[in-house]
Amino acid sequence: MDIFQESLELHGKLKGKLEVSSKVKVENQKDLSLAYSPGVAESCREIHKDKANVYKYTSKGNLVAVVSDGTAVLGLGDIGPEAAMPVMEGKAILFKEFGDVDAFPICLDTKNVDEIVNIVKAIAPTFGGINLEDISAPRCFEIESRLKKELNIPVFHDDQHGTAIVVLSALINALKVVDKKIEDCKIVVNGAGSAGNAITYLLLEAGAKNIVVCDKEGILDPETQKLDDAKVKLSENTNPNKEKGLLKDALVKADVFIGVSAPGIVSEAMVQSMNRDAIIFAMANPTPEIMPDLAKKAGAKVVGTGRSDFPNQINNVLVFPGIFRGALDARVNDITTEMKLAAAKAIASLVKPEELSADFVIPPALNKEVAEVVADAVRKAAK
Amino acid sequence: MDIFQESLELHGKLKGKLEVSSKVKVENQKDLSLAYSPGVAESCREIHKDKANVYKYTSKGNLVAVVSDGTAVLGLGDIGPEAAMPVMEGKAILFKEFGDVDAFPICLDTKNVDEIVNIVKAIAPTFGGINLEDISAPRCFEIESRLKKELNIPVFHDDQHGTAIVVLSALINALKVVDKKIEDCKIVVNGAGSAGNAITYLLLEAGAKNIVVCDKEGILDPETQKLDDAKVKLSENTNPNKEKGLLKDALVKADVFIGVSAPGIVSEAMVQSMNRDAIIFAMANPTPEIMPDLAKKAGAKVVGTGRSDFPNQINNVLVFPGIFRGALDARVNDITTEMKLAAAKAIASLVKPEELSADFVIPPALNKEVAEVVADAVRKAAK
Repeated sequence: MDIFQESLELHGKLKGKLEVSSKVKVENQKDLSLAYSPGVAESCREIHKDKANVYKYTSKGNLVAVVSDGTAVLGLGDIGPEAAMPVMEGKAILFKEFGDVDAFPICLDTKNVDEIVNIVKAIAPTFGGINLEDISAPRCFEIESRLKKELNIPVFHDDQHGTAIVVLSALINALKVVDKKIEDCKIVVNGAGSAGNAITYLLLEAGAKNIVVCDKEGILDPETQKLDDAKVKLSENTNPNKEKGLLKDALVKADVFIGVSAPGIVSEAMVQSMNRDAIIFAMANPTPEIMPDLAKKAGAKVVGTGRSDFPNQINNVLVFPGIFRGALDARVNDITTEMKLAAAKAIASLVKPEELSADFVIPPALNKEVAEVVADAVRKAAK
Repeated sequence: MDIFQESLELHGKLKGKLEVSSKVKVENQKDLSLAYSPGVAESCREIHKDKANVYKYTSKGNLVAVVSDGTAVLGLGDIGPEAAMPVMEGKAILFKEFGDVDAFPICLDTKNVDEIVNIVKAIAPTFGGINLEDISAPRCFEIESRLKKELNIPVFHDDQHGTAIVVLSALINALKVVDKKIEDCKIVVNGAGSAGNAITYLLLEAGAKNIVVCDKEGILDPETQKLDDAKVKLSENTNPNKEKGLLKDALVKADVFIGVSAPGIVSEAMVQSMNRDAIIFAMANPTPEIMPDLAKKAGAKVVGTGRSDFPNQINNVLVFPGIFRGALDARVNDITTEMKLAAAKAIASLVKPEELSADFVIPPALNKEVAEVVADAVRKAAK
């Protein structure tokens, strides 16, 4: 039985992976009077007096909504809010297992940006943070930026920033292996959706000077291509040498390839055209842009993918549980660039110098110590 | 230390009463592949093929949203969505403890009826049912009736129907004690908000012919009072003898008083003016419309309150866990009048003939067998 069939059977057996449980027993009248009426009224009154007390007397401070409209789920695309549920539940259990964050899926039956913004604002009193998930670009950019402005709890689109942070961590260590500096590297990002966008901006913040971003039509070029606003902005902030052409042209003399795009679109010849000791992060799922053995044969030094069956699994489960754990603990109202950079460095630091190698630039995805280290970095950055 | 202070300390210690837990462990790569990516994609695909599969592979079928805008919380009034959280969490844990329903609080930062309707519709893909809670009248009527029409999952405003069902159960048994028939009784309902409304309509469905409804200004009278639409409709469906006057006038020769109103507003003289063997359900919380000892002294035969420290506690915890357990199990898209009547009869039937007395007309609120009996009645009525 393959993993898909086995997973389907597990889901069918469980009828959902989530449970909402009570921290208190209600066995007798006293229990009821304390947990519910009439005693509960006192907590209500204290919060009514001072809204900040909601963090003191309710679950809000540890609750995160995993919000999706089901428009960009895994590699499956726009499959709708019901079909997105298994993924959002899965995300919620990872939050719990890795970060002890109580996360709850909210799958929305609307794709309208204004409506999504208004709904998330309206349900915010229940939550200490909002994790946006699998919302298609470019809508996700407007939704996130408006919510960040209008809400006083942290809002984080994991497909963007979780991916960006974990890529930066892997890159920090990969650059040590090949002994290059980020500011000297030519970096090609292939894919200009939610992940490609956030990766590019975070690498710029981390010191990258020469990033060339491609989408399906090649290097972003507002002069000859019809680009949405996000891509125009991205092109304005990248490609300092005004390169033009396709992905294969962009890769000539590049030091780093970061793929958040499609299976098999990078050839051995393209890798051969890159600089010596190339770094390849081929993260298309489940089939990477180029298979690791081919990339290595073509001269790449460090190769990472999204998969667990190859070395260097670049997976944002290393990021989001710790990011929210730290953000909730420090009760920040925003997850800032400083926190993201600190998180990336913290993850990278978990690979000890004596362990570091071309095949080990990032801690294993299931290392449960990572979340606490990331949380600590976020808490410190919050100060 | 009083119950309020003790409850506040408990809430502060727990930092919320809810936890979102995982039914699966994620310890290794295989676990991750099954519960999350890539295996989870298969459940997504099956639901995308046929939306009904969301009940097969996700938690939806056992999830209930406890939705409030915080406008009518306990006796505290319009205290806002944050201050409503402790009550909604309390409700959620009662759902879990009594009905094994996974309920989650959704406290809304809007009081606008259209917005509330649209938000609940938008978040519905996550949930198998919607429990509306502590939303002020008359807004709650429009919100519920629109949602019932527009959603294909059960919607239930507990302050209305939970209260109505538990009152009807107690009344069924109380009428046996005093040997009267519901159709022969004059019933005075004091309070024309959410509970008073629903109680009145359910008693009419149960056979009552002569109900007189009062609000703060006395017997509802569209000719002399400025009434909202809900109260006009209520007045048109009640008071067959066109009585006019105050509560004290309504109570003359009444057989049953049902109070969902304010402390201490019923005097001994008013009870004395009622028919022999009067039934008094004085459910104002925490102080009833008349204290049980006074009511009894004035001639009442059966007295019930909302309190646990007197006999006959009329508490809707006897209702909502079983109602939703049954509705979710039978996957009904509506909780019908038949189901409500069946639930009321089922609760009443739990008091055995040999136990039945003036001081025992309803099972104890914490009897955990009740929910299953109610659920069974709902499942049978659904067929």
